[in-house]
Amino acid sequence: MNAAPRPPTSAMKPLLSVLAGEKVWPPPVWLMRQAGRYLPEYRAVRAEVPDFVALCLDPVRAAEVTLQPIRRFGFDAAILFSDILMLPWALGHGLAFKEGEGPVLPKLRDAAALDRLDPTQVRSRLAPVMETVTRIRQGLAGEGFDRTTLIGFAGAPFTVACYMIEGGGSKDFAATRALAYADPALFDRLMDVLVEATVDYLSAQVEAGAEVLMLFDSWAGVLSPTLFRRHVIVPAQKIVARLAALHPETPVIGFPRLAGLMVGAYAQETGIAAVGLDTGMDPLAAARLVGPGIAVQGNLDPMALVAGGTALRGEAEAILTALRGQRLIFNLGHGIVPQTPPEHVGALVEQIRAA
Amino acid sequence: MNAAPRPPTSAMKPLLSVLAGEKVWPPPVWLMRQAGRYLPEYRAVRAEVPDFVALCLDPVRAAEVTLQPIRRFGFDAAILFSDILMLPWALGHGLAFKEGEGPVLPKLRDAAALDRLDPTQVRSRLAPVMETVTRIRQGLAGEGFDRTTLIGFAGAPFTVACYMIEGGGSKDFAATRALAYADPALFDRLMDVLVEATVDYLSAQVEAGAEVLMLFDSWAGVLSPTLFRRHVIVPAQKIVARLAALHPETPVIGFPRLAGLMVGAYAQETGIAAVGLDTGMDPLAAARLVGPGIAVQGNLDPMALVAGGTALRGEAEAILTALRGQRLIFNLGHGIVPQTPPEHVGALVEQIRAA
Repeated sequence: MNAAPRPPTSAMKPLLSVLAGEKVWPPPVWLMRQAGRYLPEYRAVRAEVPDFVALCLDPVRAAEVTLQPIRRFGFDAAILFSDILMLPWALGHGLAFKEGEGPVLPKLRDAAALDRLDPTQVRSRLAPVMETVTRIRQGLAGEGFDRTTLIGFAGAPFTVACYMIEGGGSKDFAATRALAYADPALFDRLMDVLVEATVDYLSAQVEAGAEVLMLFDSWAGVLSPTLFRRHVIVPAQKIVARLAALHPETPVIGFPRLAGLMVGAYAQETGIAAVGLDTGMDPLAAARLVGPGIAVQGNLDPMALVAGGTALRGEAEAILTALRGQRLIFNLGHGIVPQTPPEHVGALVEQIRAA
Repeated sequence: MNAAPRPPTSAMKPLLSVLAGEKVWPPPVWLMRQAGRYLPEYRAVRAEVPDFVALCLDPVRAAEVTLQPIRRFGFDAAILFSDILMLPWALGHGLAFKEGEGPVLPKLRDAAALDRLDPTQVRSRLAPVMETVTRIRQGLAGEGFDRTTLIGFAGAPFTVACYMIEGGGSKDFAATRALAYADPALFDRLMDVLVEATVDYLSAQVEAGAEVLMLFDSWAGVLSPTLFRRHVIVPAQKIVARLAALHPETPVIGFPRLAGLMVGAYAQETGIAAVGLDTGMDPLAAARLVGPGIAVQGNLDPMALVAGGTALRGEAEAILTALRGQRLIFNLGHGIVPQTPPEHVGALVEQIRAA
C-alpha cells in the first residue's frame, strides 16, 4: 500500500530525504500557512486582489506569495498558495470568502445538490493553479532555493465535505455528522466524488511540478472511530493508492487534525509517507504509535510562536528533544496566525538549524 | 495518590460499584446535559426563569430539572443542574448568558483583575447550589430512585480560566494560550486560585449530598503537551488529592476533552477513579492506555443520538462490544444537543439495559 520510496541520496533535498526514509538532523522545517498575513509583503499583494478566490487563480501573485517566506526564512518546503475549498469551487459548488466570516458556500444536503457537481471541469477550471505550481517551481530554481521542496495539496474529502454540507466553517460540524448518520449512502457518494476529483487535482499538481503532496483533514477529529475509519482512513487509502499508481515517486503527507488515538491506524493504513501532528499531540507518543516506517511532521503551538522568547524556545526544544535523530519534519501543529511577529519565525528557524 | 475506594458490595448503586472497581454489566448509563432543552418539561421550567444564572441559583427549579430525565429514563446518575461558570461568578468575576451567544464574562488578562477575585465568598454565594444538591438527593430517595447516584461537578481550572481570560467561548482559546506562554507566573497564580476555590466548592457539594464528583476540562485538548501537564494534569492532581483527604469515600471522574494521546497520563497521574472519553476516542484503545485501575465513561456521538435508528444502534453497539464486561459507564462523548428526539434516548437506554 505504501508508495515506493525513492532511494535516499545525500544530494536529495532534506524534506525528500526524510520522506524517503532517511533520518535528517537538524530536521527540515516549514510552517503551515507560512505564506500569510503575518508577512507585510503578503499583505501588500493581498491588498491588490481583495477577492481571495481571485488571488488563488492569479498564477503570478499566488507564486509570488508562495516564494515570499522562502526568501525570508529559507524554509525547506514551499507550499502552493491556494485553499482547500478551490476543489468544491472547481466542481461548480460555489465559494465566496466574506471579510471576517470565512468561507461561504451553498449547503449540500441532498442528492440533487450532489448531482449538480461537475467533476469533468476540475482540471480546466483549476488550470491557473497548475500554472502557479509551475511558476513556483521555476521561481525556486531561478532564485537558487535548490534545497527547498515544493508541496502541492488538497483538502481531504471529509474536511471538504464538512464545508460543502455545513455551508462554511463550524465549531463541530454537527450538520455534517448528522448527515453521515442519517443518509450514509448519500454521504458515501459524496466522498466518492471527492476522492476522484482529489486524485485528479493532485495528479495535475504533480504533472505541473509538485514534488510532495499533502492532504489536509482539518476536521477529522470530530468523527467517532467508526466514521473516522469510513470517511477519513478509507478515502485517504484510496487517494494514496491511486496516486501511487500514477506517480510512484511522489510521497504524500497526511494531516488528520485532532485524530488523537486514531493517528496510529491512520498512519499505518493509508500508505502515507508522513503524518502531520496537531498541537495537542505528545510527539514521542505519537511517533511510537505511528511506527518507524512513517515520518512525523509538527507540532509547535502557533501561540508559542506568537509569544516568542523563552516560551517559544522551550516548546520548540521539547519537540526537538522528544524526536532527536528521528524522522521529523519540524512544523507547527496548526497554521501560523496573523499576529505572529516575523522575527519570532526567524528565531525559530535559527534554533532548529542549530539543533 | 488514588482515593481509597469503597469496598464494592452488591447492594451498591451500579455507578458507585464501577467506580469502586467492580465490573458491572450491563453498564450504568447517564448522559451529559441529560437535563436540557431536548426535554419539553425542561423547556417549560426554563421559560419561567429566563435568566440562566438565576435558574442555577433556584434550588427548587434546579432540583426539579435535574430529576426530570431520571423520571423519564431511570438513568443511573443524576447530575446537579448548574454551570461550570458559576464558580467564576462566585469569585466575583461576573457572568451573563446572552441568547444565542453563550456566556459573556469580563476578560481577565492582568494581575489587577486576578487580585479582584474573592475566594472567601464562594461557599456563601453558592449556598443555593448546595441546597439544590440536598434537594436532589432527597428527591431521588423520595421518588424511589435508589439505584441512581448523584454526581456533583465543577469545571476544571484550565477550562474555567479559558472562559475568564477569553471573556466567553472561543474556537481555540488563542488569547488563553497566548497568556499561558506570555505570563506563566500570572497564569499559574490564576490556576492556584481556581484549584483552591474548586476544592472548596466540590467539598461543599459532597457535604450537601453529592456521592460522586466530576471535573469537566472541556478545552484541555487545545493545549500543547507541556501546557497540558502543567495546567490540566497538575491542577487535577492537586484537586483530587485534596478531596481525597477531605472525603476519602467520594470518587472523582475526570473529563479532559480532546486529550487524545494524553489521556493515559491524565488518567494515571491524577488519582481519578474514572476518565471521560470524548466522541473521537476509540474506546478500546483508550481503555488500554488508561489501564485496568481506572474506569472509562463515554463516548457515544451526540449526533448519532439525533439520527436514531440503525446509526444509533450501530454506534452504541460498537462501544458496548469494544468494552463488553469492562469497567464502563455508558455516556455520550459530548453533551446531548437540543434537537435530540427524547424517544431516541429511550431506545438507547433500552439497548444498553439489554446489552
